[in-house]
Amino acid sequence: MFPKNAWYVACTPDEIADKPLGRKVCNESIVFYRGHEGRVAAVEDFCPHRGAPLSLGYVQNGQLVCGYHGLVMECNGKVAAMPNQRVQGFPAIRSFPVEERYGFIWVWPGDPKQASADLIPHLEWAQNPEWAYGGGLFHINCDYRLMVDNLMDLTHETYVHASSIGQKEIDEAPVTTKVDGQNVITSRFMEGVMPPPFWRAALRGNGLADDVPVDRWQICRFSPPSHVMIEVGVAHAGNGGYDAAPEHKAGSIVVDFITPETDTSIWYFWGMARNFKAQDAELTETIRAGQGKIFSEDLEMLERQQRNLLAHPERNLLKLNIDAGGVQSRRIIERIIAAEKQADDAVIARSAS
Amino acid sequence: MFPKNAWYVACTPDEIADKPLGRKVCNESIVFYRGHEGRVAAVEDFCPHRGAPLSLGYVQNGQLVCGYHGLVMECNGKVAAMPNQRVQGFPAIRSFPVEERYGFIWVWPGDPKQASADLIPHLEWAQNPEWAYGGGLFHINCDYRLMVDNLMDLTHETYVHASSIGQKEIDEAPVTTKVDGQNVITSRFMEGVMPPPFWRAALRGNGLADDVPVDRWQICRFSPPSHVMIEVGVAHAGNGGYDAAPEHKAGSIVVDFITPETDTSIWYFWGMARNFKAQDAELTETIRAGQGKIFSEDLEMLERQQRNLLAHPERNLLKLNIDAGGVQSRRIIERIIAAEKQADDAVIARSAS
Amino acid sequence: MFPKNAWYVACTPDEIADKPLGRKVCNESIVFYRGHEGRVAAVEDFCPHRGAPLSLGYVQNGQLVCGYHGLVMECNGKVAAMPNQRVQGFPAIRSFPVEERYGFIWVWPGDPKQASADLIPHLEWAQNPEWAYGGGLFHINCDYRLMVDNLMDLTHETYVHASSIGQKEIDEAPVTTKVDGQNVITSRFMEGVMPPPFWRAALRGNGLADDVPVDRWQICRFSPPSHVMIEVGVAHAGNGGYDAAPEHKAGSIVVDFITPETDTSIWYFWGMARNFKAQDAELTETIRAGQGKIFSEDLEMLERQQRNLLAHPERNLLKLNIDAGGVQSRRIIERIIAAEKQADDAVIARSAS
Repeated sequence: MFPKNAWYVACTPDEIADKPLGRKVCNESIVFYRGHEGRVAAVEDFCPHRGAPLSLGYVQNGQLVCGYHGLVMECNGKVAAMPNQRVQGFPAIRSFPVEERYGFIWVWPGDPKQASADLIPHLEWAQNPEWAYGGGLFHINCDYRLMVDNLMDLTHETYVHASSIGQKEIDEAPVTTKVDGQNVITSRFMEGVMPPPFWRAALRGNGLADDVPVDRWQICRFSPPSHVMIEVGVAHAGNGGYDAAPEHKAGSIVVDFITPETDTSIWYFWGMARNFKAQDAELTETIRAGQGKIFSEDLEMLERQQRNLLAHPERNLLKLNIDAGGVQSRRIIERIIAAEKQADDAVIARSAS
Repeated sequence: MFPKNAWYVACTPDEIADKPLGRKVCNESIVFYRGHEGRVAAVEDFCPHRGAPLSLGYVQNGQLVCGYHGLVMECNGKVAAMPNQRVQGFPAIRSFPVEERYGFIWVWPGDPKQASADLIPHLEWAQNPEWAYGGGLFHINCDYRLMVDNLMDLTHETYVHASSIGQKEIDEAPVTTKVDGQNVITSRFMEGVMPPPFWRAALRGNGLADDVPVDRWQICRFSPPSHVMIEVGVAHAGNGGYDAAPEHKAGSIVVDFITPETDTSIWYFWGMARNFKAQDAELTETIRAGQGKIFSEDLEMLERQQRNLLAHPERNLLKLNIDAGGVQSRRIIERIIAAEKQADDAVIARSAS
Repeated sequence: MFPKNAWYVACTPDEIADKPLGRKVCNESIVFYRGHEGRVAAVEDFCPHRGAPLSLGYVQNGQLVCGYHGLVMECNGKVAAMPNQRVQGFPAIRSFPVEERYGFIWVWPGDPKQASADLIPHLEWAQNPEWAYGGGLFHINCDYRLMVDNLMDLTHETYVHASSIGQKEIDEAPVTTKVDGQNVITSRFMEGVMPPPFWRAALRGNGLADDVPVDRWQICRFSPPSHVMIEVGVAHAGNGGYDAAPEHKAGSIVVDFITPETDTSIWYFWGMARNFKAQDAELTETIRAGQGKIFSEDLEMLERQQRNLLAHPERNLLKLNIDAGGVQSRRIIERIIAAEKQADDAVIARSAS
C-alpha cells in the first residue's frame, strides 16, 4: 500500500551510466536508461515479444534494444523496430514518467496524466553551490512506513547509534510535532549538551572547537509520499542555537528518499547536505562514510521488526508522543492512498455505466 | 505438534554471557538473558512499543532495554520504564518460566501455572564431580520426532556412522523395547565383538587395551517431551559387560535434548557424559570433537528425510521391531499432546459457558 | 506440464560412477545407480522403511542399500532384504525404465508398460568413430519450453552471443520452418558472410583459412519430448555450402537434451558433435569449453524471462515468423500431453465402471 501518483527517487545517474538498470518500484518492474540525447527513460522491464527483461539489453541510437532477439523499444513503450519484422501491430508496454533532477532520477509509477515535473519537491541544497552532498543507497526488507517511523522519531539514535550521534539528552528533550498541510514536522532542541562523536568531528571539520557545550537541534520534515528531510546541527552554546551565525555552528540536512520496492522492501536513498566547507570533497567523503556506517546500524533492526510484525499482525503497537511524527505521516499517507482509490473507483464506475 | 507444558533446553549459559539471545522454541520467539542478580529470564522477543526484537537490546541493572527506543522490560513481561513516558498502561508481553540447571537454560513454553522446576529431569552426571561432560548444538531442519526415531533406533550407526561407532553386530543383535510409564527403554547388548574406532579410542583414553574383544551395550531412554539419554559402553569381554567393574570398561551417557524450533526444525543439544578420567579436560575435548563429527553425519540424512516426507504425506512408513523405540516414544508424545488439547478445550468450554 | 511417456536424458555415466545419484526428473525424485553387472537402475529416491533418500546409500552386490538402516532395494523397486527382518510384506516403490545408450542415461518417467528402448532416438554421431562429442550440464530455473524456444529461434545469437557466434546476417537471413510428423525443422542459410569468432576457430581447427567469406547454415530439429539437434557449420563460399565437400567446410551438430526437473526448472544437457578431426581430444576440449562459455550466456536471460512470465501470466506473447520453430514445437508437445491425459482418463473411466 503506497501512493502511486507521486514522484519517487528511482536511482542515481551513475547507476544508468553504462547500461540499463532493472529496478522494481512500487511493485512495478521498470528498466531505466538514457535514451535520445541522453534523456532518461523508463519503461516496463518486459519485452512484448517473449517477455525477456529489457534491462538485459542495451541502448543504441537512443533506443533500448532487447538483448534477446533485438526488438527496438521507444521510450514511450511503443515498439520502434525489429529485424525483419513489421512492428505496427505489436502491443506497447507501459512507459513511466521520469525526470532527472537534483542528481536523482525520479519516477512516477501511477497515472501518467497526473504526472507533472512541477510536483517534484524543491531541493535548495541540491542546486546551490554553497551546499555539498554525499549519499548512498541501501536495500532493506521492510515496509517503507517502518523507515518513515524510524526517521520521524530520532530517540532511536540514543540506542541504535549510541557511539556516534546518540546521546542521553535526546530521550530527555521534549519533542514537538505539528502537521502543516501534507507535511509533518517533528522538532527537538537540546541546550548546553556535549556533542557526541559525529558532531565533534563535524565541528572540527568546520574549524570549531569540539570540546565545549553546544545547543543541538533536530527538525524532521516528512512530505509525501515518503521523503524525510532532517535539519540537524550543533552550535556553540549560547549563540542562538539553530539561529546562530554560521561561524558558531555546524549543521546539515539529512536526506532520506524512501522508495517502496514491494510491500515489504525498500530502496533507501540516504545522504547528507551541508552548507559549510562545501568545496571540501574529502570532508564530503568522510561524512558520507560515517553516515553510511551509522545508517547501516538500522538495517537489522528494521528487517527483524518487519518479521516480528508479519508474525503478529493482530497486535496493536503503541503510539506515544515520540511516535507522533510517524503516526501523523502515516495518516497523510493513508489519506492519499484512500483518495487514489476513490478516484480509481470513480473511473471504474464511469466506464461501467 | 509438540507438548507445550514441558521443560525444553533452550540454550547454554555461554550463549547469553555477553548479550541477550533471541531463539524460537516451539514456535515462540523468545529472548533469553540474565536479569536481576544474574538470574536467567525469558520473555517474548517483541517490544510492545513498536514490535522491535528485544534480543537486539541489552541488559542494564538487571532489566532488558529495547535497543530501538529504550523501553525497559521487566523479566515478568511488564514494562518497567521508558524515557520520558508513563508506562502504567503499556501492555505486557508474555514471560516464560525459565530455569538454569545442570549447565543448561530450560524453558517452559506452555502454561506458566503448570511449570514447576521439580519437573526438570534429574541428571546425576551433571552434578556429580566424578562425571565429565562435553557437548554442542546443531540446528537441523527436521521434525523433532525424526530425531527421536534416530536416537531410539541405533541400527543406523552401522550405516550412517560406519567409520566410528558403527559395526555389523549392531544389526544382528536383538533389540528389546519396553515402556515404563512415560519412559521408553530400548536396549541392545553385543558380546565378544571387536570395538569400533570410537570405542577403541575410549578404551585407550581409560588406559585399557583396545585390541581385544569386548561386550558392548546401548540402552536408550526416552523421556518426554523429547529427551533421549543413551547409556553406551564397552567392557573387556567376560567381565560382566554392562555390570563389569570400572577397571574393565569405558562407558558413557550420550545426552540428547531435542528442542523443537518450528514444526520442521529443531535445536539439537548433544553431548556425552562419562565417569572415567573425569578431570581430563583434554580427553573431554577429544571426545566432544569426535562426537560432533559423528553426529554431524546425521544432518543431511534427517533434512532430506524430512523433505521426502513433506513431499509424500500420504505414505505410511514401516514400523519394524527396530523402530519400536521411536514408535512407543511417539505414542507417549501423542498422548501428552492429546491431553493438553483436552485440557485447553475444557478451559475454552468453561469460559464460554 | 510435460510428456511423461518419453525418454529423457537423466544424467551421464560419470555422475553415477562413484555413488548413487539423486535427481528429480519431471517432478519425480529418482535415484540412479549401477546395479547388477553394472547395469543402470532407477527407483524412487524414497526408502519404504522410513522415507530416507536412497541416494544417500551405496551399492553392494548390485543392490542399492539404504544409508540409514540398511534396507536392501532391488532395481525393480522391491525390497530384497533388511538385516534381521522378513521383508516379504514390505511395500515396493516405483522403479523407472532406464537405459544407457550413446553416452547418456535415459529415463522414462511415465507408464513403464509403454517404455521401449526402441523409442530412444537414433544418434548416429554418438556411435560413429568419425564423430567426436563434448558437452556439459546446466541447471536452469525455467520452464523447459523456454529453452526449446531459445534453440528453435537462433536470431538470439546476434544479441546473446554477439562476441562468438552472433552476426548481423542471422537477423537478415530468412528463416523457414516446417513440420514433419512430430518433428519441427527450422532452417536458415547465409551466403558469402564473414565467419564470426567461434567459426573462425573451427575453420582453423579443421585446417582451413578463417579470413574468407563463407556460406553458413543452421538447421534446428526439434523432436519430442524436448530434444533439439542443430546442424550448424560454415563452408568456404561458393563450394556448395551445406552440401560442400568435407575439405571445404567445418560443421557440427549442437546437441540439446532438455530435461524438465520441475515445472519451472530444467537439467540442460548441451554439447557439440563434429565429424572432422574426430581424434583430436584437445580440439574437443577447446570446443567444449568455448561452447560452455557461450551457452552460459543464456542462463540469466532464461531465468529472468521465466520470472517475468510468472509475474505476468495474463500477457500474450508474440508469435512471429522467427518464433515459428518454438510455436510448432509447443503444439506438438501440447498434443502429446493432451493424448496422454485422454489415455489416463480412459483408464480411470474403465476402472470406475
